[in-house]
Amino acid sequence: MAKKQLDISTQADLTRAWAEADYAGVCPVRQTFDSVGDKWTVLVVLRLGVEKQRFLQLLRAVDGISQRMLTVTLRKLERDGLVRRTVLDTRPPTVEYELTELGVSLLKPIGMLANWAIDNQSELNKMRAEYDAREG
Amino acid sequence: MAKKQLDISTQADLTRAWAEADYAGVCPVRQTFDSVGDKWTVLVVLRLGVEKQRFLQLLRAVDGISQRMLTVTLRKLERDGLVRRTVLDTRPPTVEYELTELGVSLLKPIGMLANWAIDNQSELNKMRAEYDAREG
Repeated sequence: MAKKQLDISTQADLTRAWAEADYAGVCPVRQTFDSVGDKWTVLVVLRLGVEKQRFLQLLRAVDGISQRMLTVTLRKLERDGLVRRTVLDTRPPTVEYELTELGVSLLKPIGMLANWAIDNQSELNKMRAEYDAREG
Repeated sequence: MAKKQLDISTQADLTRAWAEADYAGVCPVRQTFDSVGDKWTVLVVLRLGVEKQRFLQLLRAVDGISQRMLTVTLRKLERDGLVRRTVLDTRPPTVEYELTELGVSLLKPIGMLANWAIDNQSELNKMRAEYDAREG
């Protein structure tokens, strides 16, 4: 099956292509955002992009994530083929998590979004403060 | 305050820069994914990238979203300054939603992620099927 790549060289192309994909009833975008479109997933993938991690290292590194949410997130990522789980033959056994090749390929688009976040942080904060002042 | 832009020309740079930003205790990435890192937000922004929409148009276009979730999502986007809400002087009044300039700037990174989704859809499906067969 031929892949339908969005042409995002212009905004119009981006949105038109997305709309077409959507209206055709195939929406990998929706399907994928079900999977990678939550902040914990994104933050775990970014962290594993730095280096492979054991569970407790991840728990410390991804500030605010609960043990249960990290377990769920890692299982989902493993199921999607984005993260590889390796049990090392130590005593006691050590479990390591690392990005697969597919997981590594996700770093770039996620990095673009991270850059946008960094660029627009103060603007977002300003807008929120204005909104809160206006709406009481 | 100088912005700390991630250099994402290489994976190593991307992840190192992100890690530094994180360890420094400033994490706009986390903050922003709190905001735009859920699939409904992403799908509403993409849809508004096609053209401005009235509430009921959005409700139909973003398949699967509930009325309540769309309300919450639009209010959050308005608060973040990504979406502008305009009440038109018709009878009955019509409310239109459209992307602000800031909202439009988000289309490109989101489009990158959408492209990744389209490119890797079949691989993700394959990995999931294999995982489910393996884990029962």
